[in-house]
Amino acid sequence: MAVSTAKNMPPDGHGLALGVDLGGTKIELALVAADGTIRHRCRVETEADAGADRVIEDITKAGKELIEGASSSGSGAPTAVGAGVAGQIDSHAGIVRTTPNLEGWDDVPLASRLEEAFGVPAAITNDLNAITLGEQAYGAGKGYDDLVVVFVGTGVGGGVITGGRLVEGAGGYGGEIGHTTLIADGRKCTCRSRGCLEAYVGGWAIAARARDAAREDEEAGVELVRLAGSIEKITAATVDRAATAGDPLARRLVEETGRLLGLGLVSVIHTFNPRRVVLGGGVIDGMPNLVPIATEVVQENTMKVFLEDLEIAPAALGGDAGVIGAARWARIKGANEKSEGT
Amino acid sequence: MAVSTAKNMPPDGHGLALGVDLGGTKIELALVAADGTIRHRCRVETEADAGADRVIEDITKAGKELIEGASSSGSGAPTAVGAGVAGQIDSHAGIVRTTPNLEGWDDVPLASRLEEAFGVPAAITNDLNAITLGEQAYGAGKGYDDLVVVFVGTGVGGGVITGGRLVEGAGGYGGEIGHTTLIADGRKCTCRSRGCLEAYVGGWAIAARARDAAREDEEAGVELVRLAGSIEKITAATVDRAATAGDPLARRLVEETGRLLGLGLVSVIHTFNPRRVVLGGGVIDGMPNLVPIATEVVQENTMKVFLEDLEIAPAALGGDAGVIGAARWARIKGANEKSEGT
Repeated sequence: MAVSTAKNMPPDGHGLALGVDLGGTKIELALVAADGTIRHRCRVETEADAGADRVIEDITKAGKELIEGASSSGSGAPTAVGAGVAGQIDSHAGIVRTTPNLEGWDDVPLASRLEEAFGVPAAITNDLNAITLGEQAYGAGKGYDDLVVVFVGTGVGGGVITGGRLVEGAGGYGGEIGHTTLIADGRKCTCRSRGCLEAYVGGWAIAARARDAAREDEEAGVELVRLAGSIEKITAATVDRAATAGDPLARRLVEETGRLLGLGLVSVIHTFNPRRVVLGGGVIDGMPNLVPIATEVVQENTMKVFLEDLEIAPAALGGDAGVIGAARWARIKGANEKSEGT
Repeated sequence: MAVSTAKNMPPDGHGLALGVDLGGTKIELALVAADGTIRHRCRVETEADAGADRVIEDITKAGKELIEGASSSGSGAPTAVGAGVAGQIDSHAGIVRTTPNLEGWDDVPLASRLEEAFGVPAAITNDLNAITLGEQAYGAGKGYDDLVVVFVGTGVGGGVITGGRLVEGAGGYGGEIGHTTLIADGRKCTCRSRGCLEAYVGGWAIAARARDAAREDEEAGVELVRLAGSIEKITAATVDRAATAGDPLARRLVEETGRLLGLGLVSVIHTFNPRRVVLGGGVIDGMPNLVPIATEVVQENTMKVFLEDLEIAPAALGGDAGVIGAARWARIKGANEKSEGT
């Protein structure tokens, strides 16, 4: 059975769990077996502006239809439900505290709402923690007890397994690696601080840095601006295309972004001493030069003993990591509560 | 009994343990009871240039004398021995990999050498991890399962308890918070990187920044240079004295240092979501304005949910944290090995 060999993680339990990946544009739902395979799945649009009640209704309806459909093809009912949500999620109390992508979701007790809806124990966590749990058990982190997952998309998110267990923190908000300081008092971030890793290497930040640079040096960025259509339309994707086409400004931006990502990884490596760092997300996938540049920076700037068994690897589960990890989280939390209760 | 209430930490065991705090100038040894109280203690000088064999002989001799003396006053023998050592310590294998303060200590299997010497199980860890274990069970972190300890002395060291357990990492080197990037490509650090937290707020770095600033602006730093005797003699202590005396350059340096420490703490708080951050070390004690400045920066720059139950507190065990924590580590590791072996 392809479950994690991590020595400190509670057993995953048996049977199917319902995993929910609640994003700003779509909700993925899957019935996931204990070996991490998706048995049945569906996807619905997220009514991001309609408030929590409506979205929870949509999850309930889609989940029940999925379970009924699976039942008619011989599947049992799920024994637990887990959800991953972007934002600050109190994983202990099961409450969505704040989420950047959804309107009207402050302090929503999503876990208890899902328990009521499906009649089984429910657990929730941050979307990146769900991805990390999925990758650790069934993907690029399989068999690793000390693992850091960093996803660079529009924003930068992280999840950490140390000594075989997920870093949750006191309120369940831990693992916000995108909001570690990279350049003190640097560029304004989306959080309350300045100079965060995300404020340089997140997709929105690459685009903002590129627009600023193109305004400063019109000559160097001529190909970049031509490809984008205008300075205002520059995105991380156009930066990558322009760099490939030889635009000197775009090349410098890719080089700088890789270097800054690498220096952010040095922080994480010195903090956690992971065996493996897993990188994923749209910017990592869309800017293939970032990882080799960042890797070289890590090799040059990390203390040598930390490098001995360190691997940097791409994420392996793609878009499925969220639902698979959310289902696993439901099993882990369910097992813990049972063992704590007895 | 004043032991930790941390829920995931193995029990501390019973009886006395011998704790060793191996520093660059002195070795502290103590027989520590399971409630964290020091029953008997001694201190010897470290022959830092004499190589590992000689220093281990000195530890053995001092430890045996301590045990004999304690025995004559009715104490039992220790059931375990633990040591904290500055540097990169493989806490799993019990090997001192590298240490900045001692000559000839590369890859020394200190744990097995101590086991041979004392005939009881031995465990070793980084000095800051030992302090963290001491503070968590018996000091400023008592009862906290999510705790970050940051010590600012000549260097900057850290230790982290997350979910009730020490962050060790794959090789046991985790918790090097002093070597997280604070200003990418900034000032040269003592590690292989640039711009680390330590390279700005460590005692050596405050002195170096002050010397650079005094050279750049002789007028502003006139009182600082007068107090120090010359630019070359400026230390972190003279910066604090000059700031108190109203020297504008020294005041600016203290303000900047507090701000940079605060931004380093923002990283740690976003990463671990601790309930409590414990600050200690010679620079923290000697520059009393740093903590209020850093605390204000944390309040302004940290995401709000992380601040809800966050406390910043001074270390409570003073110079005893190292031996007390080393003794506790010996008990924790001994208990783990027993439970893994059965």
